[in-house]
Amino acid sequence: MSVTAAQGFEAAGVAVGLKSTGNKDIALVVNRGPLKVGAAVFTSNRAKANPILWSEQAIADGVVEAVVLNSGGANCFTGSFGFQTTHQTAERAGELLGVSSGDVLVCSTGLIGSGDEAFRQKVLDGVTAAVGELSAEGGVAASEAIITTDSRAKRSVVVGEGWTVGGMAKGAGMLAPGLATMLVVITTDAVLDAEAADAALRRATRVSFDRLDSDGCMSTNDQVTLLASGASGIAPDADAFAAALTEVCLDLARQLQGDAEGASHDITIRVHNAESESDAVEVGRSVARNNLFKAAIFGNDPNWGRVLAAIGTTAAAFDPYDVDVWMNGVRVCSEGGPDRPREDVDLTPRATEVVIDLKTGAAEATILTNDLTHDYVHENSAYSS
Amino acid sequence: MSVTAAQGFEAAGVAVGLKSTGNKDIALVVNRGPLKVGAAVFTSNRAKANPILWSEQAIADGVVEAVVLNSGGANCFTGSFGFQTTHQTAERAGELLGVSSGDVLVCSTGLIGSGDEAFRQKVLDGVTAAVGELSAEGGVAASEAIITTDSRAKRSVVVGEGWTVGGMAKGAGMLAPGLATMLVVITTDAVLDAEAADAALRRATRVSFDRLDSDGCMSTNDQVTLLASGASGIAPDADAFAAALTEVCLDLARQLQGDAEGASHDITIRVHNAESESDAVEVGRSVARNNLFKAAIFGNDPNWGRVLAAIGTTAAAFDPYDVDVWMNGVRVCSEGGPDRPREDVDLTPRATEVVIDLKTGAAEATILTNDLTHDYVHENSAYSS
Repeated sequence: MSVTAAQGFEAAGVAVGLKSTGNKDIALVVNRGPLKVGAAVFTSNRAKANPILWSEQAIADGVVEAVVLNSGGANCFTGSFGFQTTHQTAERAGELLGVSSGDVLVCSTGLIGSGDEAFRQKVLDGVTAAVGELSAEGGVAASEAIITTDSRAKRSVVVGEGWTVGGMAKGAGMLAPGLATMLVVITTDAVLDAEAADAALRRATRVSFDRLDSDGCMSTNDQVTLLASGASGIAPDADAFAAALTEVCLDLARQLQGDAEGASHDITIRVHNAESESDAVEVGRSVARNNLFKAAIFGNDPNWGRVLAAIGTTAAAFDPYDVDVWMNGVRVCSEGGPDRPREDVDLTPRATEVVIDLKTGAAEATILTNDLTHDYVHENSAYSS
Repeated sequence: MSVTAAQGFEAAGVAVGLKSTGNKDIALVVNRGPLKVGAAVFTSNRAKANPILWSEQAIADGVVEAVVLNSGGANCFTGSFGFQTTHQTAERAGELLGVSSGDVLVCSTGLIGSGDEAFRQKVLDGVTAAVGELSAEGGVAASEAIITTDSRAKRSVVVGEGWTVGGMAKGAGMLAPGLATMLVVITTDAVLDAEAADAALRRATRVSFDRLDSDGCMSTNDQVTLLASGASGIAPDADAFAAALTEVCLDLARQLQGDAEGASHDITIRVHNAESESDAVEVGRSVARNNLFKAAIFGNDPNWGRVLAAIGTTAAAFDPYDVDVWMNGVRVCSEGGPDRPREDVDLTPRATEVVIDLKTGAAEATILTNDLTHDYVHENSAYSS
């Protein structure tokens, strides 16, 4: 049920022709309250799309009434015309919903540089149509309207003690830290204030979406938004709420990984016994971004030499000659030398696990990535996106 | 003529069965003097192969009598046995040449983790065979013996006023800064002391091999060595020598780029008007390493949005909304927005030029890279290397 699983929310997804396929391309999520609390995290890319520039301002007061999302155009690097398009989108939604445009967030995804007059008109028409379609069962339609090269919509729900957290996500390429051509809306009927919502969201995204690094490419349009309606009347324990929110974020992140463009392996890189968590993240990311490693996994080749060569490029605390590496449960490298024969490793399953033991401390981190495949090259060379 | 173009050098290339193809796999370059000056730069990867660990020590006194190079095995992560193999290689060459083993550098390239007893015996036999084949015409054979997945040997010669600089290189994958599965030996008959040789080599590699970033992957085995025999009797002006050396390094770097694994485009990224040279390098490298950009170039798609998205991940001084981007002479983006239509850009030639104008200063840098292709994925997934 996605963003309408929690009480107090309505949503809609409609088609207005932004996608050449005729599929749904405008989503609207509305918080009916009684609370109108919002929190959001944005791409850390300095090249930010117009909807990011808008939403960063709109979220500042912690009040969000609605979120408009479109696929079929990123509205990034489209100049002041593009920013006006975003502004008008929020104004149209505000007028029709009877709320301030400054409490309406906007998210866009699609080709950078696209966002002309025709795009603007379709988005505005789409907002009008979506308002007419709003319903407490609209979560599925909304989740379908935000996908681009995704092969399927992503939804997740976790139920707490009298309150619910539900969300939707889209994203298939440009999956990298600081978020990833990724639009996510999560709703809850828990009673939260803006500060608590913001803290819980940052806590959850730090160990979920920020650890998803499919292809090392950081998007201009990423946004993860949390809306709280308070409709359950229950104020949860902060840790319990953060845990549920993290569970939803991790579930959605795994769905994004599992649907990454052209991927044939979902690779979980677990770094153990690092001196610090940041060391563990740096090591995991260096491996996740190594094209030679990623191509080897595509070829079902347990090439641990490429893992060590990647780790060697980091500033993390470790001794290259005292590192152990496991692939799918087989220790292929111990103390920086060959261990079990590569023939013992079965890399044919889609789910692939690489464990790296740095032996310098007690910190750990997990990075999610994908392999580098012919289909990845094909999807990102044959079509503009 | 490669490493034997300059006076005072002999070289050889022999086949001892390290390569399954039966092609040459051991190269030897000997400096007959009168000077025995050497300088070298090494991979900045913290995971260093045994020949790197050896050669870093051997070069410390600035005296080099000979360099032994093998393809067919990286001798990296092969433990103390592997280090002994490197040591014995230098000792064998030293005995046969009547010089100290501490003045013999060793370079290896091939699969990480390979370097067993059979490998050792072949390398030692190869040194003996190569000493027997040494000749002042051996530069071509030596250049052929160091290639791995290269489709052709790389050689370059520049003639100065009475002195000569000549070199050979190998490298086709793992081309990245801090050098790149790349072995290079350059010789000169100019009169240089060790300090001057080291300074000239660092000056030349900083703007040539260090600016070649084919696939973002940094090797464990890279080494660039300069040997000076002084046989010309001429001590060149430092700037003139550095210019000639840089020309040889750039020529070899371009040859490496032109033969990079699976590439269909040689991409030159020129960053202009940066606040500092390091900003220019950081921006160029961020684009060179962006898989989405690289795949777009493979697809002949002038996707400037991916260029800006890559620049946005850097800490360089720039305004994302005041950047111009040219592709093959066509300004596709001005002031962070669309300019000429993408149809105007012809990306079908192999030589591709991307110019980025940051408009924040007067510094510039050029980065050389390649596109991301099906053949790159194939070559790096179907074979262990």
